[in-house]
Amino acid sequence: MKKIKVAVNGYGVIGKRVADAVVLQDDMELAGVCDVVSDWRIRVAEKKNYPVFAFNKDFKKQMTNSGVNAKGNLDDLIGAADIIIDCTPKKIASKNIEKYKKANIKFIVQGGEKHEVTGHSFSAENNYATAIGLESTRVVSCNTTSIIRTLTALKKAGLLRKARGTLLRRATDPWESHLGGIMNTLVPEPEIPSHQGPDAQTVDNELDVITAAVKVPETLSHLHYWNVQLTRKASKEEVIAAFKESTRISMINYADGLSSNNTIKELMLAMGRPYGDMYEVALWQDMLKVVDDELFYAYVVDNQAIVIPETIDAIRALTTIEKLATNSIQMTNVSLGITQKFIEK
Amino acid sequence: MKKIKVAVNGYGVIGKRVADAVVLQDDMELAGVCDVVSDWRIRVAEKKNYPVFAFNKDFKKQMTNSGVNAKGNLDDLIGAADIIIDCTPKKIASKNIEKYKKANIKFIVQGGEKHEVTGHSFSAENNYATAIGLESTRVVSCNTTSIIRTLTALKKAGLLRKARGTLLRRATDPWESHLGGIMNTLVPEPEIPSHQGPDAQTVDNELDVITAAVKVPETLSHLHYWNVQLTRKASKEEVIAAFKESTRISMINYADGLSSNNTIKELMLAMGRPYGDMYEVALWQDMLKVVDDELFYAYVVDNQAIVIPETIDAIRALTTIEKLATNSIQMTNVSLGITQKFIEK
Repeated sequence: MKKIKVAVNGYGVIGKRVADAVVLQDDMELAGVCDVVSDWRIRVAEKKNYPVFAFNKDFKKQMTNSGVNAKGNLDDLIGAADIIIDCTPKKIASKNIEKYKKANIKFIVQGGEKHEVTGHSFSAENNYATAIGLESTRVVSCNTTSIIRTLTALKKAGLLRKARGTLLRRATDPWESHLGGIMNTLVPEPEIPSHQGPDAQTVDNELDVITAAVKVPETLSHLHYWNVQLTRKASKEEVIAAFKESTRISMINYADGLSSNNTIKELMLAMGRPYGDMYEVALWQDMLKVVDDELFYAYVVDNQAIVIPETIDAIRALTTIEKLATNSIQMTNVSLGITQKFIEK
Repeated sequence: MKKIKVAVNGYGVIGKRVADAVVLQDDMELAGVCDVVSDWRIRVAEKKNYPVFAFNKDFKKQMTNSGVNAKGNLDDLIGAADIIIDCTPKKIASKNIEKYKKANIKFIVQGGEKHEVTGHSFSAENNYATAIGLESTRVVSCNTTSIIRTLTALKKAGLLRKARGTLLRRATDPWESHLGGIMNTLVPEPEIPSHQGPDAQTVDNELDVITAAVKVPETLSHLHYWNVQLTRKASKEEVIAAFKESTRISMINYADGLSSNNTIKELMLAMGRPYGDMYEVALWQDMLKVVDDELFYAYVVDNQAIVIPETIDAIRALTTIEKLATNSIQMTNVSLGITQKFIEK
């Protein structure tokens, strides 16, 4: 079988993880990674023997001067790939998109871009099928991905009427903490609803979801609190069974000592996950509460990692190398070690 | 008019604020403050010319050795007062209560004690009248006070059906941060519902309220996010008008630069409030959102200050020096500078 050649533009927080994940897939190969930096960050890519490309001529010169062996520019990378994953910052991505379209290469953008850019927003367990063969899609953001995963599970079980969430957003990415964050305060987003609710509706417009969000002074992960109006009275067991239908939700227990974002992060590191990444939504099973026809729960989202498996699946959908969502999800899960049970017996 | 003699047992975070507030009331005088410490904390009380008492003989000796002029023991203070406000830590308070009952002195406990201890839980705007002449009451905690204030306002306007809240609780008191807190993580309470909902029902059992709570790594104040099911469709203006019926809710605006817990704290300091205390619930007016018959809003609660005016009102209710809630609230508000408009025009 011919392997799909995947290019990654932007070797930052998401890009480097996408590249590492692509390399783990049997049906893909990494055509190369492209960036503007010449420092330790891109040298890590060289160490991994990833083909390195520079964003343009000027950056290529800088790389050469810094001893980084750039194989070419973005145009060269595009020429060598079947699909490109754009992981560059917001304003830069929109300009790249014109280039991709001109070059007639399939592309995937991140959740920071507008839905209109591709006309399709992707979340594997919800709408893989609608992305088959498309020229482009947008993998929704970390928070939105977690919302769709959990609400899709409830929806499939016929339990979901409407969902209201409060999102505690981590202040900044860990490796960028030195560039500015917040401390000893809380910074609510100025508007309710926050954007994540409408964003989830770009994937599934049947979802009745409203969110409020607040920035908190920590860098590990997001924490969501949800109050869901069910379609009927349900038992706790029914709800848990519904969540367990998703292969990317992992039930955790406070009683196992997983009592906070940092304990969960430490577990991921102990499990040997790269960067301590958690691809799953970690949802507290013992904390989860059903009161008549209302459901309350909380979960943790790793904002650097959760979109990685989604991106891998999106590559398969767009390139049609796998037409069944369940097959792609299964392959991706195995390759990344995604599990529904971290330490649960 | 004879002034009510108020004793304060425990000169800590709450006790020192209660003492300062008592001194500001025309109808009260401070019989004294009682504590176990001999360091800078109790010397501040001496500097303010507050009569200082020691918890017992041994502590009195320690105070004397440290040069603190203790006027007597707790028993002496009880003998010199009409009512005592217990601001001691949880386990100590329960033992004190036996002493108060034996001495036949009226007493007020803090929200950390169980409702059963007094059989009455107090929140001025909700149930002042039911506390008139009682031997004792319990001023509910900071979070519960804020819940009752806001929900009572909606209830009085006939708008409240049920309320669901997510509480971001500050990790520890600012002055006790050196004794341990949390950093760079979030620590959810193990159980949903958290205790604040049932606690609010000890004041008003008609309230349909469920809360979830999480400890966050900051020390300034609490932040609440609420989703309220209204009894009917309502306009934003109606809801704001309802909140404005409470004299202890202050509407703030993100657009005025009040965009976080620390900006609100700085405003209180700029206003010359002692310790930068905020007695009011600071509720974001511009963020507040009504969607059909659902209401969403967020507010900030100063957990050191919000119970102080409530405690002053509880003193008046128990001692019957003022039988009308509105009169007591008005007196307390004026004495402490409580306002519905911090900087709003």
